[in-house]
Parts: sequence; structure tokens; C-alpha cells
Amino acid sequence: MPAMTAEALNAFFDREFPQLTHAGERSILVESVGDMVGTVRLVHHDRHLRPGGTISGPAMFALADVALYATILAQIGPVGLAVTTNMTINFMRKPLPGDLYAHCRLMKLGRQLAVGEATLMSAGSEDIVAHATGTYAIPPAKGVA
Amino acid sequence: MPAMTAEALNAFFDREFPQLTHAGERSILVESVGDMVGTVRLVHHDRHLRPGGTISGPAMFALADVALYATILAQIGPVGLAVTTNMTINFMRKPLPGDLYAHCRLMKLGRQLAVGEATLMSAGSEDIVAHATGTYAIPPAKGVA
Amino acid sequence: MPAMTAEALNAFFDREFPQLTHAGERSILVESVGDMVGTVRLVHHDRHLRPGGTISGPAMFALADVALYATILAQIGPVGLAVTTNMTINFMRKPLPGDLYAHCRLMKLGRQLAVGEATLMSAGSEDIVAHATGTYAIPPAKGVA
Amino acid sequence: MPAMTAEALNAFFDREFPQLTHAGERSILVESVGDMVGTVRLVHHDRHLRPGGTISGPAMFALADVALYATILAQIGPVGLAVTTNMTINFMRKPLPGDLYAHCRLMKLGRQLAVGEATLMSAGSEDIVAHATGTYAIPPAKGVA
Repeated sequence: MPAMTAEALNAFFDREFPQLTHAGERSILVESVGDMVGTVRLVHHDRHLRPGGTISGPAMFALADVALYATILAQIGPVGLAVTTNMTINFMRKPLPGDLYAHCRLMKLGRQLAVGEATLMSAGSEDIVAHATGTYAIPPAKGVA
Repeated sequence: MPAMTAEALNAFFDREFPQLTHAGERSILVESVGDMVGTVRLVHHDRHLRPGGTISGPAMFALADVALYATILAQIGPVGLAVTTNMTINFMRKPLPGDLYAHCRLMKLGRQLAVGEATLMSAGSEDIVAHATGTYAIPPAKGVA
Repeated sequence: MPAMTAEALNAFFDREFPQLTHAGERSILVESVGDMVGTVRLVHHDRHLRPGGTISGPAMFALADVALYATILAQIGPVGLAVTTNMTINFMRKPLPGDLYAHCRLMKLGRQLAVGEATLMSAGSEDIVAHATGTYAIPPAKGVA
Repeated sequence: MPAMTAEALNAFFDREFPQLTHAGERSILVESVGDMVGTVRLVHHDRHLRPGGTISGPAMFALADVALYATILAQIGPVGLAVTTNMTINFMRKPLPGDLYAHCRLMKLGRQLAVGEATLMSAGSEDIVAHATGTYAIPPAKGVA
């Protein structure tokens, strides 16, 4: 059973990551979490678009990063200062206009290091829009942030 | 001699990438470009911060991505629809509070594909904060955007 | 239905990649292929070991690379000159002494570019030893090698 | 001043990495090391070739991996059990027939983690054949292997 629910994670991000909130609305929402997995949604908003109307690379990076981070916290609890040390992202298709989902799977969850992958797909489509692999350093003192 | 100057690139980003501008101010500025190189600056702003006061991973990703893109356009001219296909970023140190620079070098500039690296350093420091390697697909029809 | 069977792929590698064969024996064998998937095995051999008795990083890279390449050829037929353009590999656990499997899934198979992931696991274990994401350029003229 | 000379590193690899030696000859040789830098050479040999006569991806991966490892050991001394945790490699051009060099630069050398890049170029050419970024975990007990 996860250490944090999707609801607890959303409250955590509201409190600790105010930069994810614009004009009172957070655009990256934790949908569900489970044993070594998690799903996070990027709510469609013009702010994330680049020329041609597609969601920008940095917006997809942010989605993958927050999604993997949320999936790790779901396992270990609210560690505010875990940090991304490495991320590789492949952009494969234009996302559809609409919400974008990141489906995450942790491949390793050690005491100091976690490694996971995030597969990004548009709502209502089975095509993979982007895929990311990320490494996170977990601080020794897991103080609640 | 570059196909676009830093000034022309900044005008291009103002016009074509309005999502880089917040409250009338663009936070990512092209500083200089040259033969296969370029330097781009992320102006310090609270919006990019995460807990602990450091610049967020997504903000650093955006800097590296725009910087590599600008360095490519400096060589080939204003191609609006070049797209990032792959990016690997290693985060190594906390950036200092202040501006962050991306120093770019293109390693390959083919007709269809460009590959470059971006080294991120805080203003006034020689320590490497982050390092990114990115691949960009260049569209066959290089229409001016 | 795949364009090449596992048997046809093994014959192809025997003929076209003699450098995979040492002393009359090939150590990387295609086990099975299907629609956008494939499984390839690295036969345990002292030649791949590094200090501490684990399979070396380069041997795991070679397994992932051949496995993704075989999975692509299974879809498009015997293209001798497809080339790896990018590979990211995360090493997560020591492999067990014994055979190592790469389970591959293609995420994109375009006319010019294929992107896939390979998950490496020791025989008889569900733990992920390593994970790779690779990009391959497919030549325009798909001549049989 | 480096903790190990190129000569000491070559003796270390002869002793500790017998899998790098084929028929009495090691094909990856440390050429020079310095403060956070190192150059390592892959001696041309048919064993590394793939169809079309180019050096294979796994051989280039092995060169980059040994080169970064050697550059790290040059700084910290003979730690036999440092391990590669992540490697990203971009293949950009066909190498020329002949020796291949990896020029390495460490970007971070912490107590537990080192990050470096390796730029691969053919002897007598300034073109970049491949570029790798690697992360290495350094064991707490730095016993001489």
C-alpha cells in the first residue's frame, strides 16, 4: 500500500511547489498511485503550447519529472528535497490537443537512488507521445517537508 | 558567419514563442552566437524556483532546449518547426541564486538532424550546474516561420 | 505478423555480424519476436565478466543494441545498414550469474527512425538489471544486406 | 597531480580487466591523464567492425566506458569496484578506418558519484564520431582492488 495517496500528493504539491500553480490553478495533477506505479495528468492549457499548437518539450519534461517524483513519494512519503540527477526524454509524436498523461513505473527504489520511466500519451490515444527515464537522489534524512 | 544574429534570434523568439514571455518579459535571452556555438541566459526569477530555492529542473531543461535550438537557428536561419527528438540532462550542482547561462556547442549539423551539447553554469562561477545533450530534427522544407 | 522469424534473424546475424561469434559460437541469440516486441538472450560466458564476476557494461550494451536491432528487423525485414544513433542505458542491479534476457518493445517505427526500449533481466528473476532506450536510423533504400 | 599515471592505469587494466585483452593484446589503451581529463585509444582491429566496415556501437561504448573509468581512477586512485550507473551515447558519424580516441572531461567528482563526458574522434580528424555522458557510483570503501 502506498505511503501517500493521490489526494495527499496533490495537497503536498499545492503546498510545496507553488511554481506549479498559475492563476490559482495547478496544471499537473496526480491521478492515481500504486505499488511502484503512478499516473499524472497535464491539464491542457495554451501556456504549454509551442508553434504548430503542440505541447512544448519543457512542459512534457515537467510532466515526466513531476510524475516520477510523485510516484517515488507515493512509495516513501513526503520527502521535499529529493532531486532529479538525470533525465533522458525521447519525443516521438505530436500530442493531440487535450490532456496529456504520464504513466510511471519505478524500476529501482533504493535507499539513496530511484530510477523510473514515464510513458506519455494523449487522452484517448494509445500512441506514445514521449518516453522519459529519470534518476532521483533520495536524501539520507527523510524529513517531512 | 552565422545566419542569424543574437538580436534577430531574440526578435524571432518574441514573435514565435510567446509562451516564453510572462507579464511582458522574456526570461530566456540569446546572449551571443557564433560558428557552431551559442550562449543563452536564463534571467533569475522566482517563477523558476523549487523548494530549497534552487532553479527547477524543468526551467533548466527549458533553458538547455531553447539554447540549443537558438544555436541551430543561428547556423541555418529561422526554421520555426525544428523539433527536439531527444534530450539527456544531468543535474550536478545546485545553481547559485542569480542568472544561469547555457554555453552550447553543436557536434553535428546535418540536413535532417542536429546534435549539440549545452553546459549550464551560474553567473560568476566555473562550476558546471547541469549538462544536456540534445538531438533536433530539421524539417525538409526550411520555410521561414 | 513479423517480417522475419527468430530463426531467420539468427541466420541473418550469423551471416552478417561475424563479430558476434567467438570460437564458432554466437553469444547473443534471438529467442522470440512479435508485433513491435522481441526477446533476445545473452548466453553466460566468462568473456563478458568484469571484476566482481558481474556481466560487463559493454556486454549489456551489446545485448540491448542487438536486441533492439533484431526487434526492428523483425518488423521491417533484413536491413543491413540500419544504425544506432542514440542509446541511453541505466544499470540498476548486478545481474545474477547466468543468462541475461533483453525484453524489447518498439515505441515508434517510422520510415526513417525507430525508437525502442529494452529491459534486461537475469534468467529466473523479475528484478530489472538494466534498462536501455535506443534510436535507430533506417536507411531510405532498404536493400537486403 | 593525478593519483595514477597512464602507465599505472594500463598496468591496472592488464591485471584487473583481463576481458579487455584478446590473444595477449589489449585493444583499449590509456594515452594520457590530467586534472579532470584523460585520453584513451581504441586500437583498430577487425574484431570491432560491423557490416560496412565501421567500428561497432558496442566497441565505441566500451571505449567511452573504459575511458571515463580511467579518467576517474586517475583522480582517486585504483578503486576496482566503481560501477557505471548511467550512460548516454550519441553516434554521429562513421569513424574512419584506424584508431579511435576518447577525450574525457569530468564534470563532477563527488564522494559517491562522478559524471563525465567522452568525445570520440578518429585519429587525424577533428570530426566528432560519437559523444557519451556517463555517471559512475564510487564505493564508500575505496580499497585498492
